[in-house]
Amino acid sequence: MSQTVIFTNDVADALNRLVVQGGYHSVAVLTDEHTRQLVLPLLSPCEALRRATHITIAAGESHKTLESLTQVWTALQQSGATRQSLLVNLGGGLVTDLGGLAASTFKRGIPFVNVPTTVLGAVDAAVGGKTGIDFGGLKNEIGTFCPANAVIVSACFFDTLPREEVMAGYAEMVKHAMLQSGDELNRVLDTDFGHCTPEHMLELVEASVQVKRRIVAEDPTEQGLRRALNLGHTVGHAIESFALERGKPVRHGYAVAWGLVVESVLSHLRQGFPSEVLYRLARFVRENYGAFHITCDDYDRLLQLMRHDKKSRHGEINCTLLRQCGDVALDVTVSDDDMKAAIDIYRDLMGI
Amino acid sequence: MSQTVIFTNDVADALNRLVVQGGYHSVAVLTDEHTRQLVLPLLSPCEALRRATHITIAAGESHKTLESLTQVWTALQQSGATRQSLLVNLGGGLVTDLGGLAASTFKRGIPFVNVPTTVLGAVDAAVGGKTGIDFGGLKNEIGTFCPANAVIVSACFFDTLPREEVMAGYAEMVKHAMLQSGDELNRVLDTDFGHCTPEHMLELVEASVQVKRRIVAEDPTEQGLRRALNLGHTVGHAIESFALERGKPVRHGYAVAWGLVVESVLSHLRQGFPSEVLYRLARFVRENYGAFHITCDDYDRLLQLMRHDKKSRHGEINCTLLRQCGDVALDVTVSDDDMKAAIDIYRDLMGI
Repeated sequence: MSQTVIFTNDVADALNRLVVQGGYHSVAVLTDEHTRQLVLPLLSPCEALRRATHITIAAGESHKTLESLTQVWTALQQSGATRQSLLVNLGGGLVTDLGGLAASTFKRGIPFVNVPTTVLGAVDAAVGGKTGIDFGGLKNEIGTFCPANAVIVSACFFDTLPREEVMAGYAEMVKHAMLQSGDELNRVLDTDFGHCTPEHMLELVEASVQVKRRIVAEDPTEQGLRRALNLGHTVGHAIESFALERGKPVRHGYAVAWGLVVESVLSHLRQGFPSEVLYRLARFVRENYGAFHITCDDYDRLLQLMRHDKKSRHGEINCTLLRQCGDVALDVTVSDDDMKAAIDIYRDLMGI
Repeated sequence: MSQTVIFTNDVADALNRLVVQGGYHSVAVLTDEHTRQLVLPLLSPCEALRRATHITIAAGESHKTLESLTQVWTALQQSGATRQSLLVNLGGGLVTDLGGLAASTFKRGIPFVNVPTTVLGAVDAAVGGKTGIDFGGLKNEIGTFCPANAVIVSACFFDTLPREEVMAGYAEMVKHAMLQSGDELNRVLDTDFGHCTPEHMLELVEASVQVKRRIVAEDPTEQGLRRALNLGHTVGHAIESFALERGKPVRHGYAVAWGLVVESVLSHLRQGFPSEVLYRLARFVRENYGAFHITCDDYDRLLQLMRHDKKSRHGEINCTLLRQCGDVALDVTVSDDDMKAAIDIYRDLMGI
């Protein structure tokens, strides 16, 4: 399952080249209302898109539905798309996941190119080939494994995003950097992403994608090393579910940022992870993500949620930890006492 | 894309073995109203099916829809099916095509087994891995390429079918035999399938499947030899469309039978295909399928439809012909005069 990944901030040129080289019968471009309004105008120099059929779905995760998928199928059909037509998915995870599913099932599969426009999409969508829609209340319940023919990763659309959206994606980049090396983590934490150039941001994104590609390549069937990518997620998922239960949902990326702090504390307590790196990370998270408030009354429910995590076995809490940046300890069983101690320290670090 | 094909008339035993070996979390069985009523009772000894979740969709090609697909997804979800659950598709092309699509997209793909219950399904569904539903008025517009984990091919359900349904599938077996050898064609034409044993029928079906497997294996990407499988279909598709236009639709298999006669005439005229085989085939088709009535006024429209066939290039009529049984001439361009002469002779042979 190989796919071409192109890192560039000249998306219009990259798309034109792909379309010319592919010799497609026709081109359709899928956006949601946001990316149609904010991103598409930035690609006005793209000849290929100007002549394309435009398909726009409603924005927001609540529209990752069979209805939107049907809308895309119908539009492809009405545009006369054939198996030699190309679908360009221009947007965040909603558009690339749903558009990938539409393309992989229309006439039993037509070529498609993903152009992620969010930080998370750029870091995440470039690898893996998962497509999907939500169904019956469950996330990505219907989907396929089908890699895009090409993914164009760029940083030139991030200015169109709300700051919270950028930060949510940035948390995954922090995670990837921690899995790579101390130097990489410093580079990511040192970046003033409010004011850095698209060129610098693209470099960081490319480095981040390469970390994930390396890990996935070493463990394509998710037997071992790939679980390293769960760093921050045992605690992060619990925080996300907990916040949802309280009726105050938080973004996944934010929950991961807080989870990275708690699991770095655990890494320090259990694996000798350096305290100075922990402090630096905690300060970065506090300043950029704020603190997720936890009181002693919440501990039991949080631990319960961690035990129900899909990575958990036999009802024990299971985490990916670090001995140091780039040195992963997989599948560490964590006692209730250690977890509670780690949350205590997290609260201190966050100033709660 | 390999898949296990099991030829047996003890389907209950074969299914039980597959389920035990697979160690699935749960099993669901998909039928349509006909196969639920007529076929399922024949499998009452099957322990695995007795404990399965039963999903039944409406019978008939008009129900090969997104609505039926949604019904299957919902039923799988409500039964608590996981990625380690098995879906058994028990029925004709509607059930195996639609069930295959449901399984290949539910949670991005769960294992499935096809148990074709029609002659066409047995001969056709065992090879290829195509799934699909109709959409926006077009056949199999939405689908995937996804081979079943196993296909159980049997002849023990054919008694539940109307004679026309059996004959429609038998036309494809005649075609496969013609692509194999004169001996194989004789064996198929000699069979009194109204009265032959399931064991004998299973032998014929297995031989037929092996012809298709050999051809597909030699040309998996449909570049050359695989087009041999179009034998009878250039004329057959035109007859099918023509009959539909006249408001008197005919079964695909019947149209193929008549198409085989016309294209055998062409094979005789253009490639020296032996006249005695042509006469034998024509008699068999006349006796078992009757004649499709064509008058001179119909020729122009029929030829027009042939020129619009997907195999046609530059508006020419293109056929797969035979020098003799088993000796294929691919992509033969046929002039209007030759085609009209062939239809003239077809009308003589059919006694029209």
